[in-house]
Amino acid sequence: MILVVALNPALDITHHVDGVDWAGVNRPSAVHACPGGKGPNVARILRALGADVDLAGFAGGHTGDVLSAALSSAEVPASFTRIAGETRRTFAVVDTRRDETAIFNEPGPTVSGAEYRAFLERYAEALPDSGAVVLSGSLPRGLRPGTYADLITMAAQAGLPALLDTSGEALLAGVEAGPAIVKPNLAELLAAVGRGGQWPASGVTPPVQLAAEAATELRSRGADTVVVTLGAAGMLALTADGAWLAGSTPVSGNPTGAGDAVAAGLAYGIARGCPWASSLSHAAALGAAAVAAPVAGQIALSDYERALAGVEVKIWERL
Amino acid sequence: MILVVALNPALDITHHVDGVDWAGVNRPSAVHACPGGKGPNVARILRALGADVDLAGFAGGHTGDVLSAALSSAEVPASFTRIAGETRRTFAVVDTRRDETAIFNEPGPTVSGAEYRAFLERYAEALPDSGAVVLSGSLPRGLRPGTYADLITMAAQAGLPALLDTSGEALLAGVEAGPAIVKPNLAELLAAVGRGGQWPASGVTPPVQLAAEAATELRSRGADTVVVTLGAAGMLALTADGAWLAGSTPVSGNPTGAGDAVAAGLAYGIARGCPWASSLSHAAALGAAAVAAPVAGQIALSDYERALAGVEVKIWERL
Repeated sequence: MILVVALNPALDITHHVDGVDWAGVNRPSAVHACPGGKGPNVARILRALGADVDLAGFAGGHTGDVLSAALSSAEVPASFTRIAGETRRTFAVVDTRRDETAIFNEPGPTVSGAEYRAFLERYAEALPDSGAVVLSGSLPRGLRPGTYADLITMAAQAGLPALLDTSGEALLAGVEAGPAIVKPNLAELLAAVGRGGQWPASGVTPPVQLAAEAATELRSRGADTVVVTLGAAGMLALTADGAWLAGSTPVSGNPTGAGDAVAAGLAYGIARGCPWASSLSHAAALGAAAVAAPVAGQIALSDYERALAGVEVKIWERL
Repeated sequence: MILVVALNPALDITHHVDGVDWAGVNRPSAVHACPGGKGPNVARILRALGADVDLAGFAGGHTGDVLSAALSSAEVPASFTRIAGETRRTFAVVDTRRDETAIFNEPGPTVSGAEYRAFLERYAEALPDSGAVVLSGSLPRGLRPGTYADLITMAAQAGLPALLDTSGEALLAGVEAGPAIVKPNLAELLAAVGRGGQWPASGVTPPVQLAAEAATELRSRGADTVVVTLGAAGMLALTADGAWLAGSTPVSGNPTGAGDAVAAGLAYGIARGCPWASSLSHAAALGAAAVAAPVAGQIALSDYERALAGVEVKIWERL
């Protein structure tokens, strides 16, 4: 069982419009509502791989009900702690004529101390049945930046590896608790170590070198392994056993959710104790399959298998 | 009691963003969800005037639940016929920096024959307790263009005047059933009588003259009174008792929902048997108060009273 924690999940609403009038009335040709947020995406990918999943976190209001119902339809086992606030929506407008997407992320609810304590009980009860923990996404308002650090410590006390995929203060504080893996993208990684000014990565230092330097710093602060996603350049993993660079045949498509597919692949690997080279291959292939899929959090297994054949993992030598 | 029919109501979700990135990620500063669609707007304005209201129509799914709950919080008595489909949402993105609003209207559910028959029972039961009927907004998919005509005929058989506020085929078919009032805006009126090419009204024929010609045609097809809203130019009423032009002091603001406020004022007048000049004054003042209000379907009574003092109603002489 992989325990996936989504403290600020969302309901994603997507409108497709052929040529948006940004100052007028539009009639979307297609409207979709599906579970969103990084945690639910990871859980769906793990389910697609056939893994046992337990999705925990917070849900509230009618939007929380719709989210729970949609996860249930997708056969993703989820049991959220109820909150008084309303689960957030994200609203994406896909302009099919201009090939542009605008995304509107609602701020989401504030979680109270009592609600967080109820979640902690739920989390502690699930740990003994789990083989790994995934902590994904932003923290809702009301929770301290050290929240993920506490959850990583509890997992460690139960003997479980934790994968942390977040950004900013929550990432920095979480790293101190010694997670098995942190999985930032390059922008998140550079921002976390105070090198946000070096992003977008351009100029004399190649992105992989930039990533390696910043990842080394995160490792020195407590993370056991740092996997940095580098977009089309693949991903770099700095582990206690060595460093690898994994790349797949470039795919065109929608990169939203590709990081979540990578996180799912890595979590699947650590839960089963797979060697790094194998975990990284699968994670890179899942990332490529997610780019090829039209909706975040969904992959076609045929895309995954095709991508896997094109993945290259090589030992990376520090400069 | 005024019976307000909303066959295709909506939940209006509004995001306020300071400078939208139409090809990127936005974090709205404020998010509101409130009852939407023309019928719920009319019902809320009537409640603000102190009228007894009964709001009927269709609602389904979680969005239908949210709509019903929001109307209940606003103390608008509503009892919708449940449908299997999901009530539609509208999304408005207000760009506070550019002062532009983009609106995304979901198409909404399809209503089945059995669901429509269940509504007809509910409608027939409400007629004996009502003093007037308001039929507002578009028809949902699945219902014939003649639906409003049938509802107007049933109201007439119960001795009740009906106000029809819709457009296109539903308006044309409805007019044949002899409603007491139809209340199109100039664009809807011209489109209905096949003069859509004369809109936007410009050139040699003044808008009021265009409106009078088209309204005369709608009256000849069956409408007892035609009230055409003309934006800042006020409104023109062609009745069996004469023609009036009503105007109010210009107000700046949001014209969305102003037509619904006018419909509410006219319905209030016919339910009480007020003389036309009085009904038109109140309707024009309500329209102005709605423009001044930040949210459609809500007015400040102080704005209404102020606007009423500035309304001018004069007999209009046909050219």
